[in-house]
Amino acid sequence: MTATGLTEQMLLKQSYLCVGLDTDITKLPAHLKGHKNGILEFNKAIIDATLPYCVSYKINTAFYESQGLRGWEIMQETLAYIPKTHFTIADAKRGDIGNTSSQYAKAFFEAMDFDAITVAPYMGEDSIRPFLEYDNKVTIVLGLTSNVGSNDFQQLLLEAYDETLTMVPHITQGAREKRLYEHVLEKVSAWGNSNNLMFVVGATQAAELDNIRQIIPEHFLLVPGVGAQGGSLKDVSRFGLTQSVGLLVNASRAIIFASNGEDFSEKAASVAQGYQQEMATYLQKV
Amino acid sequence: MTATGLTEQMLLKQSYLCVGLDTDITKLPAHLKGHKNGILEFNKAIIDATLPYCVSYKINTAFYESQGLRGWEIMQETLAYIPKTHFTIADAKRGDIGNTSSQYAKAFFEAMDFDAITVAPYMGEDSIRPFLEYDNKVTIVLGLTSNVGSNDFQQLLLEAYDETLTMVPHITQGAREKRLYEHVLEKVSAWGNSNNLMFVVGATQAAELDNIRQIIPEHFLLVPGVGAQGGSLKDVSRFGLTQSVGLLVNASRAIIFASNGEDFSEKAASVAQGYQQEMATYLQKV
Repeated sequence: MTATGLTEQMLLKQSYLCVGLDTDITKLPAHLKGHKNGILEFNKAIIDATLPYCVSYKINTAFYESQGLRGWEIMQETLAYIPKTHFTIADAKRGDIGNTSSQYAKAFFEAMDFDAITVAPYMGEDSIRPFLEYDNKVTIVLGLTSNVGSNDFQQLLLEAYDETLTMVPHITQGAREKRLYEHVLEKVSAWGNSNNLMFVVGATQAAELDNIRQIIPEHFLLVPGVGAQGGSLKDVSRFGLTQSVGLLVNASRAIIFASNGEDFSEKAASVAQGYQQEMATYLQKV
Repeated sequence: MTATGLTEQMLLKQSYLCVGLDTDITKLPAHLKGHKNGILEFNKAIIDATLPYCVSYKINTAFYESQGLRGWEIMQETLAYIPKTHFTIADAKRGDIGNTSSQYAKAFFEAMDFDAITVAPYMGEDSIRPFLEYDNKVTIVLGLTSNVGSNDFQQLLLEAYDETLTMVPHITQGAREKRLYEHVLEKVSAWGNSNNLMFVVGATQAAELDNIRQIIPEHFLLVPGVGAQGGSLKDVSRFGLTQSVGLLVNASRAIIFASNGEDFSEKAASVAQGYQQEMATYLQKV
């Protein structure tokens, strides 16, 4: 599934919700904590309960790798359990020199059949190209992330007279200053198209969304940070929605750990439904 | 093992060579290609043959993840096979928001017992701190990488008057312009010390090493890019060596795929020995 298929699902279900399976083994409900397949059983119950309200699942690879070999296997089994109607994302933040990125692409697009993977941009074009070579797959590049550390480098102002910026007219003409993340969005967006390339923009960065939409008016934004991290769905939707929806808003902890009792999946469904209903109202206004 | 222990091993063996186990299954010698444990048998033979000449092994996680579940298992088995005299690096290029980076640290420092992991800096301080919290472990942050794509973002000039740069006297005083990767080195180096923090600087970037040593005079540099990528060991050593050695030079393909015949491990040993002997001459001059 690429962006076009995703838009269709969103309009059908009146939802642009992604459920993040950041399944922390220490936060499992008591009755699943000692269970050999605790994480897998938890994920299956969450998926069953939230399917009607979301269009996507995002598997955060770190929470599976930390469980060793069985964790990697549970990641595969969780992915296999998600129906093809739902867009699947490996939130893996990979990226390396070309021949190595090719291997990561193979891992997540071939050995496993994810629809999309998140990729870090620091190493530049040849670290991202190998992911874009796959038809019907989506590469989601970090733009402006939801965490405090996004101020450390992503928000740095660039020198307007840097000769490596000559490809960017509004900088070389001195019209305005530009931050690193803006240059990342602008430069990376030229390497793919709005069907095979998306960007991560944190929900805590809603104030920047208006500006971001000027740089990349059509690309889908994967927006984590609603819920536990404090981002506002209303603000994100107001500035981020496009005619093709263009937003995929992720909530992880706020949904999957809404309750730590035996009712965890019902509570997860309830929170997910709440997001979906709010999203439906914003979609009416597009 | 941290940087101090690594220096001891280097002086003892007169080597600062790291062998990169980027074990591409398609490049295995014919007699191992169809073998169920081909990658593992290959790695064991390479390790046995090169042990005397190197001080470290770097496992490139991508080449294992691309092989699915068995690949992850072979990564674990390869790590377990490396003797404790040798510094082990997970070349994983991880990095995410704090609670997720903690899980990656757990994966590579607890579930597996690597001495070090490579980390991408784009997401800032809270994405790197969780790795630094481990005693006797080393975090290796990307500085200036060996690939062409390093020009895309790492070499961007920063605006000297950006208020977020006020911590950096030589910028705010207008003494010189600064590039993104220089700011990354400077800023990240304040989050750890020269015993638990190292930086990746590509061997193809030898011209910048003199400058880099002014920013981080004491930190170890992990230097990939010698061999297949064209970097010069002589140039890297000339500008990068410190009183505590301070360099860990990696070669992957040039060593492990020196021959694709049954003599692959002998040929690998021979190339590794060549590097070691050259390194010994440079160490005499420090």
